[in-house]
Amino acid sequence: MAPRSIDLNCDMGEGFGAWAPPPDEELMPLVSSANVACGFHASDPRLMRRTVRLASRHGVAVGAHPSFPDLVGFGRRMIAASPAEIEDDVVYQVGALLGFCRAEGVPLVHVKPHGALYNAAAKDPAVARAIASAVRAVDPSLWLTCLAGSVLAREGRAAGLRCAEEAFADRGYAPDGTLLPRGHPGALVTEPEAIAERVSRLAREGILLAADGTELATAAATVCVHSDTPGAVAAARAIRARLERDGVAVRSFAAAAEGR
Amino acid sequence: MAPRSIDLNCDMGEGFGAWAPPPDEELMPLVSSANVACGFHASDPRLMRRTVRLASRHGVAVGAHPSFPDLVGFGRRMIAASPAEIEDDVVYQVGALLGFCRAEGVPLVHVKPHGALYNAAAKDPAVARAIASAVRAVDPSLWLTCLAGSVLAREGRAAGLRCAEEAFADRGYAPDGTLLPRGHPGALVTEPEAIAERVSRLAREGILLAADGTELATAAATVCVHSDTPGAVAAARAIRARLERDGVAVRSFAAAAEGR
Amino acid sequence: MAPRSIDLNCDMGEGFGAWAPPPDEELMPLVSSANVACGFHASDPRLMRRTVRLASRHGVAVGAHPSFPDLVGFGRRMIAASPAEIEDDVVYQVGALLGFCRAEGVPLVHVKPHGALYNAAAKDPAVARAIASAVRAVDPSLWLTCLAGSVLAREGRAAGLRCAEEAFADRGYAPDGTLLPRGHPGALVTEPEAIAERVSRLAREGILLAADGTELATAAATVCVHSDTPGAVAAARAIRARLERDGVAVRSFAAAAEGR
Amino acid sequence: MAPRSIDLNCDMGEGFGAWAPPPDEELMPLVSSANVACGFHASDPRLMRRTVRLASRHGVAVGAHPSFPDLVGFGRRMIAASPAEIEDDVVYQVGALLGFCRAEGVPLVHVKPHGALYNAAAKDPAVARAIASAVRAVDPSLWLTCLAGSVLAREGRAAGLRCAEEAFADRGYAPDGTLLPRGHPGALVTEPEAIAERVSRLAREGILLAADGTELATAAATVCVHSDTPGAVAAARAIRARLERDGVAVRSFAAAAEGR
Repeated sequence: MAPRSIDLNCDMGEGFGAWAPPPDEELMPLVSSANVACGFHASDPRLMRRTVRLASRHGVAVGAHPSFPDLVGFGRRMIAASPAEIEDDVVYQVGALLGFCRAEGVPLVHVKPHGALYNAAAKDPAVARAIASAVRAVDPSLWLTCLAGSVLAREGRAAGLRCAEEAFADRGYAPDGTLLPRGHPGALVTEPEAIAERVSRLAREGILLAADGTELATAAATVCVHSDTPGAVAAARAIRARLERDGVAVRSFAAAAEGR
Repeated sequence: MAPRSIDLNCDMGEGFGAWAPPPDEELMPLVSSANVACGFHASDPRLMRRTVRLASRHGVAVGAHPSFPDLVGFGRRMIAASPAEIEDDVVYQVGALLGFCRAEGVPLVHVKPHGALYNAAAKDPAVARAIASAVRAVDPSLWLTCLAGSVLAREGRAAGLRCAEEAFADRGYAPDGTLLPRGHPGALVTEPEAIAERVSRLAREGILLAADGTELATAAATVCVHSDTPGAVAAARAIRARLERDGVAVRSFAAAAEGR
Repeated sequence: MAPRSIDLNCDMGEGFGAWAPPPDEELMPLVSSANVACGFHASDPRLMRRTVRLASRHGVAVGAHPSFPDLVGFGRRMIAASPAEIEDDVVYQVGALLGFCRAEGVPLVHVKPHGALYNAAAKDPAVARAIASAVRAVDPSLWLTCLAGSVLAREGRAAGLRCAEEAFADRGYAPDGTLLPRGHPGALVTEPEAIAERVSRLAREGILLAADGTELATAAATVCVHSDTPGAVAAARAIRARLERDGVAVRSFAAAAEGR
Repeated sequence: MAPRSIDLNCDMGEGFGAWAPPPDEELMPLVSSANVACGFHASDPRLMRRTVRLASRHGVAVGAHPSFPDLVGFGRRMIAASPAEIEDDVVYQVGALLGFCRAEGVPLVHVKPHGALYNAAAKDPAVARAIASAVRAVDPSLWLTCLAGSVLAREGRAAGLRCAEEAFADRGYAPDGTLLPRGHPGALVTEPEAIAERVSRLAREGILLAADGTELATAAATVCVHSDTPGAVAAARAIRARLERDGVAVRSFAAAAEGR
């Protein structure tokens, strides 16, 4: 029987040119999946190469992290792009990262949309279908990382893709399973041990506590480790230590699916 | 025995956003290889998709046409990029186009550097090696399209790549086989029939006449058809008509090499 | 008494790098105000210089035509930018054009937002205030060109700016004075004489006919001449000829206000 | 009699979008002139506004810091742009910053080219003339900050501009007054007290010691304080403390020239 495990995914390579990315060197050894920025909200060819190489060195699964084209806005602003524009923007970015995966001899495993594109894909079927269509067109064996229970998860599966549903251990949930808006009391969980406890319970029992204490059952196969918050490294270390104590392995969803 | 043939290559997809590319619709049926702009000097994801689709519809071999990152300068300005930067810029662009080739179900066949990068690669071994290394890293079966007799042809072969050497039927040559600088008398051949005659003789005899009448023997397997000059379509039609009369097939160098 | 007059405004300089703008050379002599693209949806420093110089040669009033930062989308896509981002994007673009106005020795007269920014400013008070605030901050004597009756006109005046209200002679209007959506029957007026008739009546009587024949009274001081539609030059010539016949001068709203 | 004084200038606003600039908040109170990035190698409209505001709050003179258009390369790579392209790129950037100066109610005082453009302008008369021409065209009362003894200083003066010559207290000089190349022994002075001593002697005696001890007489009116090196803040503090002890005021060259 496969050991109990969970994937920890982290956005990586989110620097640009002279501006270094957050602590990728320290975080990479602590996670199992890297969502690699592809130049539209962050990163550039040199940094993409270095990020894929760093992931490869630590045996971390490499995925593309495509965005709306908005470097100055870090991909956080909704752009009223057409589905066809979104589809082709995603093909472009996934293809570009595929180039570096080939150059570094590692498989491209998954695709996780970034920022405003992630949020739009979670709710808007046209956006979700555009992304799923792009991913399938480049490689139908790629995984799609999606907000748990989102429209993207549904549309991704409808397109024949495997979807890894994602939970946020450092974010508060409403009793209906949606994320509490930032600014709302309980919207952020900042204490590393509390985050670690949430990840461990999710991995062992498939349960995530809502802010009001409701037990939410979830099929989440991956937990997002933020790289751009203060204390990101400390939180990731706390999660790793806790999972080890609790007998939960950290490995990518793809590896888990294949029994590796 | 394979029929006598020559490849006609043409830069394609050199528009951007609201700005349409030169007469790609008219030229595509007339050539055998398309060098597709990848977003660094021209093109965008929507246009790359349309360009690959157009090539596919006409059975034209698809290649990447990577450039220095200089959209405003159309890739015509030398940038003092390091070899590592050039290498990764090429991986990025070739990968991005590979995404669209997969999405459209056509093979990616070759890579031809654009503009200032093409010129630098023809002379500078460090630039040539960076490009060859990038192409091999993405896919060692890709062809490299290079100026006949250039440093890029030499370095490309040293890297184990197949190289298609390129001649310019609408440019004048010095007796030593180098291109006459623009502005020099005889630097441009503009009369369609004259261009067609030059292509035909090259295909049949491997001979290109220098501006002074010297017969230059050349191994060129492909001739560049410019898309951005007035009369480009007329010149291409004249070449096609002449080759047909002379019993020379137009097919990509890759197809010729495989006896297709 | 000042002669009866109207301003004809036209977007100018909407090329980029190697891509030439629409027929600016032909249109410039036919209009009285040029809305000069500032690099965010189109244009580049070389083209901005040439466009300002061309306007100067024809005595055409120069205005800035700022946009959301979206070159690939030609500024036609809404971006969920914050008011502060919009304000600073407008300051940047207006300032950049001011540099060229100084370099060419012509005054900067007005500011007209482009595309999605124009549309957002017509309806959204926060966007309108951001633009008005930016324009006033750079130079409180600048005019603001706004959709007639729009939120931008209201907010611009509230900020102490002079506003030139704009009508579209080649677009159909609903009886309530709003533009008919493209695709709606009667949304486009394409016949040059019909457009010219509409401009002339607007200039002489302040009346614009709605698609259903309703007479709309309007304070519009300027009419937009599109540069990117087929037949733009023919339409502009028809307008000029008709206005001449009808004794209406073509001059900028600024000149009219100053009795020049 | 005006007090003995020197200008300390520092590149500011060299972040972009989500990427914060070096310690501008800490450095601004320590210098007298800020060279504000204008979006071509770093910065964006929001950051330009904040940088001008920060300079204004500390009474620091604001200058433009234009660059080749190369955000990914931070303006450090030579681009073979034509003089006309350089001239218009500079007009654009200076104009954009002028917009923010007006918006914040502070004068624009000077222009200092950045990176590869600074280096090219120091040696190449065509580049230097293009920059001088652009600056004069926007405002002939602007100062030009130039490498001491450079071609730009000569061409700037020939164009009628006032030039502030610049010395580098943290760089080693050869006996002929040129900068030692990075990597050369003695090329970098890293000890804060040593840098401070060099600045003070320059301010008091107009003497800069070469790496071999030669006393170089210099007309430098401004010293560059680097913002992007480790220990930049410590070095700046040491310089300020030393200058105060030695009775040298820190004020901008413009203020010194006007006896303010």
